[in-house]
Amino acid sequence: MKNTHLVILAGGAGTRLWPLSSNERPKQFLDVLGCGMTLIQLTAARFKGLVPPENIWVATSAEYRDLVKEQLPDVPEGNILVEPCRRNTAPCICYVSWKIKKRNPRANVVVTPSDHMITDVKAFQSAIKDCMEFAAETDAIVTLGIRPTHPETGYGYIKADLSYSSSRRNNIFRVDAFKEKPQLETAKEYIQQSNYLWNSGIFVWSVSTIVNAFRVYHPEISHLFEDIFSYYDLPQEQDMINQQFPKCESISVDYAIMEKAEEIFVYPADFGWSDLGSWESLRRHSHPDKYGNATVGEQIDLYETRDCIIHTSGLKKVVVQGLDGYVVVEKDNTLLICKLSEEERIRLFH
Amino acid sequence: MKNTHLVILAGGAGTRLWPLSSNERPKQFLDVLGCGMTLIQLTAARFKGLVPPENIWVATSAEYRDLVKEQLPDVPEGNILVEPCRRNTAPCICYVSWKIKKRNPRANVVVTPSDHMITDVKAFQSAIKDCMEFAAETDAIVTLGIRPTHPETGYGYIKADLSYSSSRRNNIFRVDAFKEKPQLETAKEYIQQSNYLWNSGIFVWSVSTIVNAFRVYHPEISHLFEDIFSYYDLPQEQDMINQQFPKCESISVDYAIMEKAEEIFVYPADFGWSDLGSWESLRRHSHPDKYGNATVGEQIDLYETRDCIIHTSGLKKVVVQGLDGYVVVEKDNTLLICKLSEEERIRLFH
Repeated sequence: MKNTHLVILAGGAGTRLWPLSSNERPKQFLDVLGCGMTLIQLTAARFKGLVPPENIWVATSAEYRDLVKEQLPDVPEGNILVEPCRRNTAPCICYVSWKIKKRNPRANVVVTPSDHMITDVKAFQSAIKDCMEFAAETDAIVTLGIRPTHPETGYGYIKADLSYSSSRRNNIFRVDAFKEKPQLETAKEYIQQSNYLWNSGIFVWSVSTIVNAFRVYHPEISHLFEDIFSYYDLPQEQDMINQQFPKCESISVDYAIMEKAEEIFVYPADFGWSDLGSWESLRRHSHPDKYGNATVGEQIDLYETRDCIIHTSGLKKVVVQGLDGYVVVEKDNTLLICKLSEEERIRLFH
Repeated sequence: MKNTHLVILAGGAGTRLWPLSSNERPKQFLDVLGCGMTLIQLTAARFKGLVPPENIWVATSAEYRDLVKEQLPDVPEGNILVEPCRRNTAPCICYVSWKIKKRNPRANVVVTPSDHMITDVKAFQSAIKDCMEFAAETDAIVTLGIRPTHPETGYGYIKADLSYSSSRRNNIFRVDAFKEKPQLETAKEYIQQSNYLWNSGIFVWSVSTIVNAFRVYHPEISHLFEDIFSYYDLPQEQDMINQQFPKCESISVDYAIMEKAEEIFVYPADFGWSDLGSWESLRRHSHPDKYGNATVGEQIDLYETRDCIIHTSGLKKVVVQGLDGYVVVEKDNTLLICKLSEEERIRLFH
């Protein structure tokens, strides 16, 4: 366990769940499920027993640093890495990888988004353990792929080669290709085949593997962080990062590494995953009642209402009659009522 | 003017506009139109120039006494009559009539609900003046009838005998009959004829006429208030009222007097009247935009929304997308969303 490190990516400024989420407080810092814990707290909690707190790293932007400290008080302050500007996932994963390498060159690392949900934590932990052991024994980059339940167009897909499992693990397969978010017709074709999986954005690798991968597949970014290696854990670190970070290309780790590297594997998983990237996905994953309604709030009475999500923070009582397929959300004295079929327009409503 | 008295009936506990109105604060004490004045303030204000403040009387229940004092500070405290229990309109009109008679036996009186709206105040004042002069010259009981604009089933109707106008006023007619709230078919028949008018609940008479009418048509109620005549304006008055009032039959002045008396007249009026007894009537009378939406609140943005009324007090921002024919109302951290076609069920939602 002492070689196991966890990296939580918490820089996202999700505004799709407005007015619940906002730039001031994106959804990873909110109790969107109404369970008493924020998504980042749930994310950290599901690694309990797998990763010691001193091995948890959080990459975020300066404005959310205090939220991270407040919500994850067990994470050492020095493990909260502040990105001075948004450069997508590759630069910050490279930065934290060099940091971890300096701390422990034998580290094995899980990288996870901070704002997704997983319902079967036991299955999740078992998957992580398998991937960790595999990554420790090999030079593999392992991704967690989710068996799709519907032709979702909001996720990227991983095409697995199910005929080619690792010789060491019969539940880990070689990746054929990464696929961008598909059109509906394509998504329907994908899910008719058994070898297309949702890309969860959860990765497992040894620190030496990922650092080498950056050196090979994106040397520019790799050099920027290798060059300042000697400053890590010194008072000048943040200043150096503030110089180097803006020079990085803004690129996802999927583009920078995954789609180029050879030794990419996928673990097909079934642990009830969602990126909670829309009100509709939040509705589906919030234990809707038999009429399809999901509610979070103090007292919510529904009449002739179906397939709605009602999410209120500041209201004592809510009565809804006669709505079908709507989101109703109240936060900080802002109220949104919108058809779920039109929720992509919500960002235009702020 | 010194003989002109105004009686504002402010005992109603309207809950049809819940959660805007409530038993704690019925709609007469609320700024339901979003104009900066409550309905009772608007009611008093539309008599400005017709009735001096010391001749304004308000009948209400004990729980609303402080609201009346606060909202109508010009009305003398001794003119606020407290009904110890609800007994409909006849007992309190009888009580206030005896009070006014003691103050000025030559008084002419207008009785008005406190929670209706009138848009054309000039036409209203002209109507009241005509009725006042007529009532002062005769023993007539005069009602204000509103020319109907649609087959409303929520109002009572007055059937006028348009062939029989008063010899003194050619715009005041004898009443043939009072009609209860009709079914839709009947209401449609009514409005095809020109002699059916909405019963506004506004009455004009001399104090001697109404006191005599009570003596003749409802002597039980009349005696209960005549018996304690000597206590009016003395410290014991409220105690006496608290004894007598519960003994009264609960009956409206329409039943107790109007439907029995002979000399009943009606003034057909066109001054933009509504009892604001439903969210739909409030919507129609709140200057809806070209899509039929009426809004009261700080910042309300509507998209693909028609024929809705949005009324919020505590929200800073409201965004509504894709609603047709709904009421959305927020007050004191309570939110209601309901189809206007189902609003009669609102009282079941409290």
